[in-house]
Amino acid sequence: MKNKLILVTNDDGIFAPGLMALVKVAEQFGEVVVVAPNSPQSGTGHAITINQPIRLHKIHTIKGIEAYECSGTPVDCVKLAKNVILKNRNIDICLSGINHGSNASINIIYSGTLSAAMEASLENIPSIGFSLLDYSFEADFEASSEYVKQIVQTALENGIKNCNLLNVNIPKLSKSELKGIKVCKQAEGRWDEEFMEAKDPRNEPYYWLTGKFYANELTEDSDLWALEKGYISVVPSGHDLTVYPAINSNKYFESGAIS
Amino acid sequence: MKNKLILVTNDDGIFAPGLMALVKVAEQFGEVVVVAPNSPQSGTGHAITINQPIRLHKIHTIKGIEAYECSGTPVDCVKLAKNVILKNRNIDICLSGINHGSNASINIIYSGTLSAAMEASLENIPSIGFSLLDYSFEADFEASSEYVKQIVQTALENGIKNCNLLNVNIPKLSKSELKGIKVCKQAEGRWDEEFMEAKDPRNEPYYWLTGKFYANELTEDSDLWALEKGYISVVPSGHDLTVYPAINSNKYFESGAIS
Repeated sequence: MKNKLILVTNDDGIFAPGLMALVKVAEQFGEVVVVAPNSPQSGTGHAITINQPIRLHKIHTIKGIEAYECSGTPVDCVKLAKNVILKNRNIDICLSGINHGSNASINIIYSGTLSAAMEASLENIPSIGFSLLDYSFEADFEASSEYVKQIVQTALENGIKNCNLLNVNIPKLSKSELKGIKVCKQAEGRWDEEFMEAKDPRNEPYYWLTGKFYANELTEDSDLWALEKGYISVVPSGHDLTVYPAINSNKYFESGAIS
Repeated sequence: MKNKLILVTNDDGIFAPGLMALVKVAEQFGEVVVVAPNSPQSGTGHAITINQPIRLHKIHTIKGIEAYECSGTPVDCVKLAKNVILKNRNIDICLSGINHGSNASINIIYSGTLSAAMEASLENIPSIGFSLLDYSFEADFEASSEYVKQIVQTALENGIKNCNLLNVNIPKLSKSELKGIKVCKQAEGRWDEEFMEAKDPRNEPYYWLTGKFYANELTEDSDLWALEKGYISVVPSGHDLTVYPAINSNKYFESGAIS
C-alpha cells in the first residue's frame, strides 16, 4: 500500500520530534503532505483564526516531504490543507501528532492535536490523533512506532466504522513493556487546578496556570484504565455533544410564547 | 430568589453589549461576578493559556457589579474565577454570553462562549451558554430577555438534569415573533469554507478564513429546526466525545503485544 495521500499535522509545531516520528510512519503508505503550526500550540483546543490573516510558507527541512508551516492554529492548518494546498485532491487520512503528552480522558477537549484531527473528520476525512504520555521534547517515539504503523494500516485497509475519528494514546513504556492495543471509551477525569501567582519585574501581578490531573474512574473499558495497564488506548470519537438522555429530563425548560 | 452567586463570562470581550444584556438578567437573581476576556475571542474554542502568564484586572465600568478583565481565553476566565477570584465560594451557576452570533449545531465546537460554559460544567457548576443569531455589535438583546430570564430562573429553581450544561441559541426575531423554547439535540451541519487569498503591502501572500454554514439535517428534534421555526433552542450538552456504538465495531484495531 504505497498510493495513499496522507495529511500530517500536530499542535507542538512543525519542528517537534513527535511530528517527525509520525511522518516516518506515514511515508510508508504513500504521499505525505505536512501542514503544521510554526510554533507550539498546546492547549489551543478547537481554536480558529478569524480576526486576522494567516501566513503559510512552504519549507524544505523535512527530507523528501512537501511541508508547510502556518501561523494559525492546528485547526487552521487542516482547513488550509483541505481548502488551499490540497484543494482538488482526495485526502485518504489525516494523522495528527504524535503529541508530546496525554490526550486521554477529558484532555481531548483542550487538545490542539485532537481538534485538528476532529476538524478533518468533520470534512469526512478519516482521522487519527496520536499522543504519547511523555511531555519531554526528548520523548522516545520509537518504542511504539510498530503500533502506530499497525493502527494507520488498519485504518487505511478497513476504515474506521461508525465514526471518523480515533483518539490514540500511548503509555510511556519501552517496546517490551507495551502490552498491545485496546479500543475503549473516554474516561471521566478532571484537573485540579491552581494558579501560580507572582509579580513581574514592574511589580505587576500575573497568574500562570498549573494543575494535576485526576482520574474519576478506572473502569475496565476506559482509556485511562487501558493506559494504566500498559495498553495503547483507541477511543472512537465524534463531535456531537448532545446528552441524549437529558433531552427528555429537561423538557420543563420548554415554553410557548411569552406575551 | 435574590441570594445566588452567579459567574458571568463571554468570548466577545468585557465590553460586548451581549455581556451587559446577560448581566442585566443575572443581577435579578443575586450577586453577579463578571470575569471576561479583555478583547474579542470568537472562535477560540476550548483554548487555554499554558505557555505564558495571564493578566487579571478589576474594572469598575459595570455599575454595581464586581468585574474583572482577563488577558486569557474564555476558558482561562472561568479557571481564574473558580480558583482565584471566587476560590472558597460556591458558584450557583455560570452564564456565558450572550454571544453575538450562532453557536447552534457543530458551532459549539469552535465556540469560546460554550467552551467557557463547558469548563464551568466540568467543575460541577451548572452552566448555560447563550447565543443570539445576530453577529452585529448593535444586535437587539432586549427582544429575548424575558426568555433568557425564564431559562436562568428554571435552572436555578429546578437544576439541569442528567447533565450540567445547556447550549441556548436565540433566533434573530422580534419579541412578538419569538414562539417559545424547545429542548432539542445538536443538528448535524458543516462549514463550506474558503480562504480569501491576497497580498499584503510588502507583496507577501496571506489567507483569511471565510465560509458559509450549511445544515445537514432539519429534523424536528434538532436545534437548527427549532431556530428555523422561531423557537429558542436548548441543547443539553456534555464533554464525552466517545461514539459508543463505534467501540465494538472497531475492535479489529485491537492487538496483543508485537514482539
